[in-house]
Amino acid sequence: MGGTGLRIGIIGAGSAVFSMKIVSDLCKFPSLSDSHVVLMDVDRTRVENVLVLAKELTKYFNAKLKFSIVETIKNAVEGSDFVINTALAGGHGYLDLVRSIGEKHGYYRGIDAQNFNFVSDYLNLTNWNQLTLFLKIARTIEKYAPNAWYLQAANPVMEGTTLVSTQTGIKMVGFCHGHHAVEAIAKFLGVSEYEWQVGGVNHGIWLTKFRTKDGKDLYKEVEKALQKTRYEEFKPSNPFDDQLSPVAWEMYKLYGLFPIGDTVRNSTWKYHRDLQTKIKWYGAPWGGADSEIGWKWYVEELSRVVGVIDMFAKMVREGAKINELKTGTQIDDYLKEILSEKISGEQHVPFINSVVSKVPGRFVVNVLNKGKIKNLEDDVAVEICATVCGEKFEYEETHIPERVVNWYLKPRILLAKQAIDAFLNKDVRLIADILERDPRTKSTEQVEKLIAELYTVVRQEAEKVEQQE
Amino acid sequence: MGGTGLRIGIIGAGSAVFSMKIVSDLCKFPSLSDSHVVLMDVDRTRVENVLVLAKELTKYFNAKLKFSIVETIKNAVEGSDFVINTALAGGHGYLDLVRSIGEKHGYYRGIDAQNFNFVSDYLNLTNWNQLTLFLKIARTIEKYAPNAWYLQAANPVMEGTTLVSTQTGIKMVGFCHGHHAVEAIAKFLGVSEYEWQVGGVNHGIWLTKFRTKDGKDLYKEVEKALQKTRYEEFKPSNPFDDQLSPVAWEMYKLYGLFPIGDTVRNSTWKYHRDLQTKIKWYGAPWGGADSEIGWKWYVEELSRVVGVIDMFAKMVREGAKINELKTGTQIDDYLKEILSEKISGEQHVPFINSVVSKVPGRFVVNVLNKGKIKNLEDDVAVEICATVCGEKFEYEETHIPERVVNWYLKPRILLAKQAIDAFLNKDVRLIADILERDPRTKSTEQVEKLIAELYTVVRQEAEKVEQQE
Ligand SMILES: NC(=O)c1ccc[n+]([C@@H]2O[C@H](COP(=O)([O-])OP(=O)(O)OC[C@H]3O[C@@H](n4cnc5c(N)ncnc54)[C@H](O)[C@@H]3O)[C@@H](O)[C@H]2O)c1
Ligand SMILES: NC(=O)c1ccc[n+]([C@@H]2O[C@H](COP(=O)([O-])OP(=O)(O)OC[C@H]3O[C@@H](n4cnc5c(N)ncnc54)[C@H](O)[C@@H]3O)[C@@H](O)[C@H]2O)c1
Repeated sequence: MGGTGLRIGIIGAGSAVFSMKIVSDLCKFPSLSDSHVVLMDVDRTRVENVLVLAKELTKYFNAKLKFSIVETIKNAVEGSDFVINTALAGGHGYLDLVRSIGEKHGYYRGIDAQNFNFVSDYLNLTNWNQLTLFLKIARTIEKYAPNAWYLQAANPVMEGTTLVSTQTGIKMVGFCHGHHAVEAIAKFLGVSEYEWQVGGVNHGIWLTKFRTKDGKDLYKEVEKALQKTRYEEFKPSNPFDDQLSPVAWEMYKLYGLFPIGDTVRNSTWKYHRDLQTKIKWYGAPWGGADSEIGWKWYVEELSRVVGVIDMFAKMVREGAKINELKTGTQIDDYLKEILSEKISGEQHVPFINSVVSKVPGRFVVNVLNKGKIKNLEDDVAVEICATVCGEKFEYEETHIPERVVNWYLKPRILLAKQAIDAFLNKDVRLIADILERDPRTKSTEQVEKLIAELYTVVRQEAEKVEQQE
Repeated sequence: MGGTGLRIGIIGAGSAVFSMKIVSDLCKFPSLSDSHVVLMDVDRTRVENVLVLAKELTKYFNAKLKFSIVETIKNAVEGSDFVINTALAGGHGYLDLVRSIGEKHGYYRGIDAQNFNFVSDYLNLTNWNQLTLFLKIARTIEKYAPNAWYLQAANPVMEGTTLVSTQTGIKMVGFCHGHHAVEAIAKFLGVSEYEWQVGGVNHGIWLTKFRTKDGKDLYKEVEKALQKTRYEEFKPSNPFDDQLSPVAWEMYKLYGLFPIGDTVRNSTWKYHRDLQTKIKWYGAPWGGADSEIGWKWYVEELSRVVGVIDMFAKMVREGAKINELKTGTQIDDYLKEILSEKISGEQHVPFINSVVSKVPGRFVVNVLNKGKIKNLEDDVAVEICATVCGEKFEYEETHIPERVVNWYLKPRILLAKQAIDAFLNKDVRLIADILERDPRTKSTEQVEKLIAELYTVVRQEAEKVEQQE
């Protein structure tokens, strides 16, 4: 198959791990390996490092990818066939700031931490900057590349996909890799060949099908495993190792389906009330990824990666070959994977391939529901399995029991809609309304003081993105 | 028009005020004034008092109503054309007990007090006895009088109507008189001729239309009044006088429609956090009907009425005429109303008349939504305006803005569905799930201790009703 000569814009391309996966995947699809990859980021150093490594990677794979760095969203968008957004407006510094103002006013882990929404880089109440950026990119696409696909990797995926899809008419898909956690369950049960399906909303997906190739329901094995599970024996290998944590089992018992991936983090206050509670349920020593300990671990890991990327870029500039780079840390494994023949776990490039080359592929996509999952609202983004071929999506029939719908998905969806309403109207009374029912709120005065301090920052940062070109 | 010879069963007929209104209304409709009214109650004294007064009332109106007292639900149902339920299983004593156990464990005003659900005789989490009674009556109707109408006056109307309508196939309507509060708004604005419409769910209804006979939007007058409203000037005349309270205005400002009737009581924790807060928003000295002070006022009022009814019945038995009865209290006004030519504010009898005599009448009914209000769930009871003629209901097109739907009605509906799920499955883990996100919860231990103590009582009382004939 010959090349298709695509132009692919990546916004937030300085996110090195992500960009390298995308570039590496592009190299591995012959039909895409002559694409023009346009990198855009507000952090010049980071994006230049990515450029150096990306070029080297292309050489390594003998691919024909071209690269440019551009300064503006418009330049990343205009002429592009696909625009991937992986930017985090304000960066982790903003997340930390917002969280710390929340904590100062009595909101442990910040006000965005809410029932069913505890993922620490998935803010939906205070990320008006991020949502502004999403809309800005989408409107730029609408104007300058109306036929382009907008692929959303940045969080919040559910709110972002819902917002963009209801406010603009562009083609859009939100992607997450959380469903890979199904593999952990299969491995635990000792099953290697199986069929699976997930459905729900981003970071709120449930194992709706799980069976052997010849149709035997593997939930029976899950049931057996449950009988043998001893919570006190659970020892996570890292803060994110929670797919088989006591929380996952408890959620399964209450809701009747197994929660998949980040869904386990998005449980209820029962598991998140304080550090001690988190440790009890998500395991010592971290108490899961979203405790102050677990999240510190992750952010340090991220900044270590940034440092290593910087070092790698320097070494490559000085003549090192990409397959000679080494750190003696986990990053080596990650690099090895990128250099292997295997496709990364990210869905973006295989999706582009399915659309462009009309090779059918199965994906887990975030798109407006519009009847796809019958007992969920139409005007909100659901996460659902689909086979994509060209521009045709065949959505799998996905049945989610009422228990999951009424106790988990609908409350979660309402929070998303409320967050979007507050953002679109910039109405802090709505934020106050959410906080008045928050278990951490002691008084209206507390709410008012918090909002006065926090939303000054929130508005300022959104304004900055509004001004960005 | 001749009489129609109906049989009308009233369950919980000892509720004297309610029963007397029904009987008085029946006397005033010529076509219904030869009905056979069958009174059923677990409290023999109360129902016998009602019988004495009801017969006297019939004489007074020169009507031909017949009465009997029966002992069982089956006897109240079998042969009846309409069954009205106004019973409160466990009585106010049960409400108080449940509330006090809640308070003992740190839940101010009991665990049923929840965001959007603060009405003190409207429990939905702990009233398994009441819901059991509803279902029992409905199943008895299904078996012994499948063509009868079930008219639900007892609370919780939304949960009860939803439960019965989804679990059985009987004809059912839930009634409330809360919409009369529209009159208070009109009076306040100095408007006498107007058109109105309400919609939503029981105790969660909103003024969806409000205009002059020639189509001028009266919300403009509401807006003007808002500008002049001084919260500190609000002085309620009794605990229930809240239609023009600061809470009502605040709700109007946030949600964009005016909340009607008990909807004002069903606000958020912002207005209900503690007694001081309630007094601030619902006015001194009571802090609304649902504070410890306001509710005490109401319960004392109720027991005063029971005492007076007892006295009246004695006087009538000793030969007094009903129009000679007097107490020197507000009860005299109420009696005067019953003896006047005016129909009471209760909708039951006019509804029966519209069904039986095919005289079109406009009602505010609680029925399963099934598409009547487009942006609300189908399988839940909504409160909506309808014109009834024979068995035909013409529902008014009712538009409720997204703000009200996403910030008030959907969360309230979810609570109803969750309450019904917990009841049907008798699953206290679901109650715990609700409490874990409750602002009054400090720890899981608190939840567990509360449930252990409270649900022993809740189960026992439900069991008693289960055994009742
Ligand atoms: N969907 C998924 O599977 C998945 C997985 C992990 C993380 N994420 C999300 O991806 C995003 C990036 O996370 P990260 O940890 O790499 O963050 P990061 O702070 O490294 O940000 C990524 C890049 O965005 C750039 N950026 C910031 N503001 C920008 C702007 N206004 N315009 C252009 N570029 C801008 C930064 O300079 C940085 O290089 C987050 O939203 C995160 O939650 C998604
Ligand atoms: N829909 C409305 O407009 C409206 C208005 C006010 C009150 N209510 C509701 O009406 C109901 C009655 O309130 P109330 O203050 O009159 O209560 P109440 O305690 O006076 O009870 C009414 C009657 O029910 C009887 N009863 C109790 N258990 C019974 C059973 N198992 N079988 C038969 N009868 C039984 C009692 O003996 C009593 O006579 C409550 O649910 C209340 O919330 C509804």
